[in-house]
Amino acid sequence: MTAPAPPNRRPPGFGSDNVAGVSPAILAALAAANEGPMPSYGADEISARVEARLSQLFEREVAVFLVSTGTAANALSLAALTPPWGAVLCHAESHIENDECGAPEFFSGGAKLIHVPGAEAKIDPQALAEAARRNRGDVHCVQPAAVSITQASELGTLYSVAETAAIGAVCRQAGLPLHMDGSRFANAVAALSASPAEMTWKAGVDVLSFGATKNGALGVEAIVLFDRERAGELAFRRKRAGHLSSKMRFLAAQMEAYLADDLWLANARQANAMAARLDAGLRALPGVTVQGRVEANMLFAQLPQTMIEGLLAQGFRFYTDRWGAGVVRLVTSFATREEDVDRLLEAAAKLG
Amino acid sequence: MTAPAPPNRRPPGFGSDNVAGVSPAILAALAAANEGPMPSYGADEISARVEARLSQLFEREVAVFLVSTGTAANALSLAALTPPWGAVLCHAESHIENDECGAPEFFSGGAKLIHVPGAEAKIDPQALAEAARRNRGDVHCVQPAAVSITQASELGTLYSVAETAAIGAVCRQAGLPLHMDGSRFANAVAALSASPAEMTWKAGVDVLSFGATKNGALGVEAIVLFDRERAGELAFRRKRAGHLSSKMRFLAAQMEAYLADDLWLANARQANAMAARLDAGLRALPGVTVQGRVEANMLFAQLPQTMIEGLLAQGFRFYTDRWGAGVVRLVTSFATREEDVDRLLEAAAKLG
Amino acid sequence: MTAPAPPNRRPPGFGSDNVAGVSPAILAALAAANEGPMPSYGADEISARVEARLSQLFEREVAVFLVSTGTAANALSLAALTPPWGAVLCHAESHIENDECGAPEFFSGGAKLIHVPGAEAKIDPQALAEAARRNRGDVHCVQPAAVSITQASELGTLYSVAETAAIGAVCRQAGLPLHMDGSRFANAVAALSASPAEMTWKAGVDVLSFGATKNGALGVEAIVLFDRERAGELAFRRKRAGHLSSKMRFLAAQMEAYLADDLWLANARQANAMAARLDAGLRALPGVTVQGRVEANMLFAQLPQTMIEGLLAQGFRFYTDRWGAGVVRLVTSFATREEDVDRLLEAAAKLG
Amino acid sequence: MTAPAPPNRRPPGFGSDNVAGVSPAILAALAAANEGPMPSYGADEISARVEARLSQLFEREVAVFLVSTGTAANALSLAALTPPWGAVLCHAESHIENDECGAPEFFSGGAKLIHVPGAEAKIDPQALAEAARRNRGDVHCVQPAAVSITQASELGTLYSVAETAAIGAVCRQAGLPLHMDGSRFANAVAALSASPAEMTWKAGVDVLSFGATKNGALGVEAIVLFDRERAGELAFRRKRAGHLSSKMRFLAAQMEAYLADDLWLANARQANAMAARLDAGLRALPGVTVQGRVEANMLFAQLPQTMIEGLLAQGFRFYTDRWGAGVVRLVTSFATREEDVDRLLEAAAKLG
Repeated sequence: MTAPAPPNRRPPGFGSDNVAGVSPAILAALAAANEGPMPSYGADEISARVEARLSQLFEREVAVFLVSTGTAANALSLAALTPPWGAVLCHAESHIENDECGAPEFFSGGAKLIHVPGAEAKIDPQALAEAARRNRGDVHCVQPAAVSITQASELGTLYSVAETAAIGAVCRQAGLPLHMDGSRFANAVAALSASPAEMTWKAGVDVLSFGATKNGALGVEAIVLFDRERAGELAFRRKRAGHLSSKMRFLAAQMEAYLADDLWLANARQANAMAARLDAGLRALPGVTVQGRVEANMLFAQLPQTMIEGLLAQGFRFYTDRWGAGVVRLVTSFATREEDVDRLLEAAAKLG
Repeated sequence: MTAPAPPNRRPPGFGSDNVAGVSPAILAALAAANEGPMPSYGADEISARVEARLSQLFEREVAVFLVSTGTAANALSLAALTPPWGAVLCHAESHIENDECGAPEFFSGGAKLIHVPGAEAKIDPQALAEAARRNRGDVHCVQPAAVSITQASELGTLYSVAETAAIGAVCRQAGLPLHMDGSRFANAVAALSASPAEMTWKAGVDVLSFGATKNGALGVEAIVLFDRERAGELAFRRKRAGHLSSKMRFLAAQMEAYLADDLWLANARQANAMAARLDAGLRALPGVTVQGRVEANMLFAQLPQTMIEGLLAQGFRFYTDRWGAGVVRLVTSFATREEDVDRLLEAAAKLG
Repeated sequence: MTAPAPPNRRPPGFGSDNVAGVSPAILAALAAANEGPMPSYGADEISARVEARLSQLFEREVAVFLVSTGTAANALSLAALTPPWGAVLCHAESHIENDECGAPEFFSGGAKLIHVPGAEAKIDPQALAEAARRNRGDVHCVQPAAVSITQASELGTLYSVAETAAIGAVCRQAGLPLHMDGSRFANAVAALSASPAEMTWKAGVDVLSFGATKNGALGVEAIVLFDRERAGELAFRRKRAGHLSSKMRFLAAQMEAYLADDLWLANARQANAMAARLDAGLRALPGVTVQGRVEANMLFAQLPQTMIEGLLAQGFRFYTDRWGAGVVRLVTSFATREEDVDRLLEAAAKLG
Repeated sequence: MTAPAPPNRRPPGFGSDNVAGVSPAILAALAAANEGPMPSYGADEISARVEARLSQLFEREVAVFLVSTGTAANALSLAALTPPWGAVLCHAESHIENDECGAPEFFSGGAKLIHVPGAEAKIDPQALAEAARRNRGDVHCVQPAAVSITQASELGTLYSVAETAAIGAVCRQAGLPLHMDGSRFANAVAALSASPAEMTWKAGVDVLSFGATKNGALGVEAIVLFDRERAGELAFRRKRAGHLSSKMRFLAAQMEAYLADDLWLANARQANAMAARLDAGLRALPGVTVQGRVEANMLFAQLPQTMIEGLLAQGFRFYTDRWGAGVVRLVTSFATREEDVDRLLEAAAKLG
C-alpha cells in the first residue's frame, strides 16, 4: 500500500470498496496458517482465538460464525431471528432489501422485508415503533419479528450511539431482536468516538454482521451473536446453506490478521480519510454539489453530465444513474491513496 | 511440502483430506492476484481465464460458477435440476444424503432424496432405471427429477467410464439430468485412464461439482455446466444463497493455480499413491483386513480394537465407529508423505 | 334469502362478504352429489363438467384447479409464475400483499412482492412498465417475474376492459405473465358490460383466481389457466400444498351450481345493488362522505365518530381504523337485503 | 345408507374410503349452519363448540385447527414440530412419506423424513431409540426432531395402547415430540378397547391429525394439539398455507355432526365390520390368502391373477400392483354395505 504507483497505472476505481485487493498482513496470515494438518470445520485453534479476540473486542462473551460473504452473514442472521411468517423491519435503502437477490427471503423460508422510513437511509425510531405495532397478532398478516439497521448505511451515513440506542429501545419494548448489517462497521467505528461495545450490544444490538471483506480481507465476515442462545441454530443453518468452510482456518486467519494491531481500524481510517479528501476537493469545484454529510467512506455528489462522461471516458470507475440524474457514488477503500483522489479531482477540475 | 518434518512433529492426520493445508502454488497465486483494483463479482479477468481453461480441459464450452464449499456446489447444482416436488435419485451412501445437513432440500425448496441401491456406494443402473420409472405422473408422489452420483464415491470407489456411461444412458432414456459430485474428481481422474471429458459429459453427465478444496485449495469448487442453458438460473441462485463472492478473483486465482501445470493431478496422484502405500502396508499386518479395493485416496479397514485405541492414544487421527465395529476410515491427501504413512504402519505393527 | 327476517333479528353484518352463508342451490348441489361412490381427487364426472363449463364460459379451452380458499388460489397461481428469485409486481393495496400472511412468499420459495403505484388501488400501466424494466438481468436483484392485479380491487374499484388490456400490453411487452386475483370477479362481471373472456385472456390475463366463496359458495375457488402449459406443475403444487381434496366432487358440485342458471351473476348483482343503495342512502346523510365511486359491492365512507360508535354499539358490524380516522368499510353480499341496508341507514340517520 | 341398492347399481368400489360420499347427518349440519351471517375465519360459535367437544372427548383442554385435507393436517403439524434442518422419524410405509408429494418437506422448509423399520408398517420402539440418537449434535447432519406414527397404519394395522406408549416413552426420553397421523383414527378407536385419551396424549402423543373425511365428512380434519403451546405458530402457518377457511363454520359444522351421537364411531364400526366380513369371506375361497390380521377397514390379499382381472373387468374397483404381484388392497368405508361385500365375494368365488 505504501509503494509508489507505477507511472502509467490505470485510473483508480471508485465503484466500490470491493474492487480493492487484500491487505498484505492478511495474505501473510494465510501463509502462516498453512502449517501442517489442522482440524476442519472450525475446530482449529485459529478459529478459537478469533472467537476469544472478538469477545475481548466487544467486552462480552460472544458466539462467532465465520462465513465468506456479507449476504450470507446477513441472511443467516435474519433467518435465526424471524419465523417464515415474520417481517423484518428495515429501511428501503438497505442492502438486504436491494442487493441480495432475496437472500433473506430464501434463508428465512419466505419472511417479508417491510420498509420503515427515515432520513439519510436510517430508520426513524418513531416510525419503527409504529411499524412494530402494526398487525400484531392478526393472523392474516406477517408478524413484526426483527429489525435490521445498516452501519454505515447504504448512503454512507452513520447511526450515532444515541441513534442506535433509540432504535434498540424501541426493539426491546416491542420484543423484537435487533440486527446490525455491519459490512462497513469498521468505517463506522473509525468515524465515531465510541467503542464497538457501545455501538452494538450496549445500544441494544443482538446480532452483528461484522464485515472484513470490503476493508481488506479476501472474503470473510463474522456473524457475532451477543447472546449465545441462538448459536446452536446458527450452526445448523450455516452448514445447511453451504457456508461451513472445511478449511475454516483460512477464514479465521484472515479475521485474526484483520483484528491484529488494529489493522481493521487503520484500514477504515484510510478509507474514511480519502472520502473526506474527496469531499473537500469536490466541494471546491464549480458545478459540483456533494450531497449530505460525508461520514464514512462513501460520497454522493451531483456532477455536470459532461464531467461524468469525461471521467468515465478517461477510465475512472464509479456508479451513476441509480440515485437520480447526474448523481454519482464514489467509494474509497483502504487501498485508495491520496494520489488516487487527487487524480480524480484534477481530471474533474479540467472537465468542470 | 518438501521440507523435512520437524523431529517432534505430531502424528499425521488421516481423518479427512480437508485437514490438510494448501499447495504453495495456490497461496502464491493469491498474492499474484492482489495487484490493484479489479472488478468484483466475477467480472475480473482471472475468472474469465478460469472458464476458458475449464472449457479447454473438458473439450467443450462450459459455464462455470465458483463457490467456496462443496456443499454449496452440490446443493446449487441440484436445485437447478429439480423442482421442489422432485426427487433426486442417489445412493444412500452419498455426501448429499448424509453430510450436508439437508442442503439439497433447503436449496431446492424441499425436494426429496430417494435412495438407489448398488454395491460399493455406487448406483446400480438397473435399479436406477426402476427408480426413474416409479410414480411417474402420480400427483401424490414426488417425481424423479435428477440423478446424482459421486466420483470418487464416499467409500473411495470409482465409477469406470463404462459405469458412468451406463448411468448416463438410463438418465437420457428417462429424461433425467445427471449430476456428478466430484469433490474428489481429481482423485478419480488420476486413477482412471480417461480424460475429464470422457468421464463426464461424454458419458452423460450434465453438471459437475468440480472440487479443489480437498485437493490443495483453500476453499473453491467449480460448478461446471456442460450445457449453458441453466447458467442464468444458477447465477441468481448463487447470489441468493450468499455464494457470489465480491472479491471473486481470489476464488478464481485458486482455481487457476490448481489447474496450472496439472497441479491438480499431481496432488491427486500423491494422495492416491499414499493410499496405495497404506493399503499394501496394512494388508501385511496380521489381524488387519482392508475392505474392498483401494482405488483413490480413501481406505476402509477392519482393525483389532486394541490397535485402534492405541493409535488414537498416540495421537493419530481418523474416523471410526461409523462403518461397523472395528472399521476405520483412513484418508490421504496431497500433503500426506511417505513417512506419514510409514509412521502409522509402524505404530500399527507394534500394536498388532 | 327470500324469507322475511325474523322480528328480533340481529343487525346485519357489513364486515365482509364472507360472513354470509351459502346459496340454497349450492347446498342442494352438495346433496345431489352425494350419490354413491365416485372417483376421488378430481377424477369424478362433476369435476370434468366444471372444467368444460368454465371453458365454455371463457370461450376457450382452460385448465381448472379447484381449491378451497382464495389465498390458496392466489399463492398457487403465483408460485407457478415466478421463480424463487422473482418479483411479483402488484399494488400495495392488494390482498396478496396485506392479507395472506406471506402465502405468496411461502408457496414461491421466497419471491418478493414489489409495489407498483396507481390510483384507487389499481396499478398504473406507466408505473408498471418502469417496474418491469427495473434491475432486469442484475444478479444482485430479484427479477420482475409476474404481475398480479385484483378485480374487483381491495377498494372495490374496477379495472375496465381497456385498463386491464393496458396492463396486459405492458406485460406482454415485458414478457411477464399476468395474474388476476378475482375473488370478487363475479361482482366485476356484473358491473361491467363485458364478457368474462374480454375481461381476462382477451385483455392479456394468463391465470385467474376465480372466486366463488365470497359470493355464495361454502368454500371453493377455481384457478383458471388460460394456457394449459403450466397445468402439470400446478397439479403437483396443489397436492404438495394439501389442496387436492380427496372428495373433490363436493368442491366441483359447489362450482357447478354456482355457474348454473347464472347464479353467480345473480348473486353478484344483488350484492352490487345493495352497495349502490347504501351509497345513495349514505350520500344523503349530513356529515357522511362516501369516498370515490362505488362500483362493486364495497364502499368506503367517512363517518362522524359518534355515528361509528353508535352503530357498533347497536351491533352493526364493519371494519374501521384501517383506512384513516373515521373511515369505515361496508361490504355487501348476495345475502344482503334491502331491509338490511335500510336498517343501517336509518340507524345512521338517527345518529347523524 | 339404509336404502336398498337399485337393481342395476354399478359394482361397489373398494379402492379407498375416500370414494364414498357423506353421511346424511353431516349434510344436514351444513344446512343448519347456513342461518344468517356468522363471523368468519373460525370466530364463529360452531368452531368454539367443536373445540370444546374435542376437549371433552380427549379429556383435556386441546387446541383445534380445522383444515380441509389430511395432507394439510399432517404437514402443518409436522412443520410446527421440526426445524428446517430436522428429521421426522417415520415408517417407510407412511402416508407422509409416500402419498403427500413432499408436503412435509414443503411446509417444514426442507426437513427430511427418515425411515424407522418395524413390522406391519409400525415403527419398532428399539429401532426408534437408535434413530433418535443417530447424529445428534453433528452439524453435518439433519437432527432428529419429531416422530410420526400412523393410526390405523397404511397397512390397516393398529398400534395397541401399549405399543403407542412404548413409542411415546422413547420420544419423551429423546426429547422428541410425537405426531399421530389419524386420518383413520376413528377406525382405530372403534377397533381397540381404549379411550381416545388413552390412545393419544396419555400414551405420549403431542399432536393428532384427527381425520373425518375418509369416514363420512365432505372434507374436514382437525389438528388437535394436546399442548396449546404451539397454537400461536399453527395459526400463522395455517393461514400462510391457504388453509384458514373464511366460512369456517362449514368445516366446523361437519366436525360437530361427525362427533354428535357418536356418528364417527358408528361409521367406523360399519367400515371395520365390512372389512371383517370381507376377511372371513375371502379366507374361505381357495387360492386366496389374506395377509396378516385385518384390524380396521383395510385388507390385503393375494389373489389368483385371473380373479383379479375378472373382478376388474366386471367393474369392481381396488388397487393392485403396488404391494407385490397378485396382491390387492380392499378398503371398506362407512358406506359399504353387506351386500356390497357379498357381491364381491360371490364374483370372486365364481372366478376362483
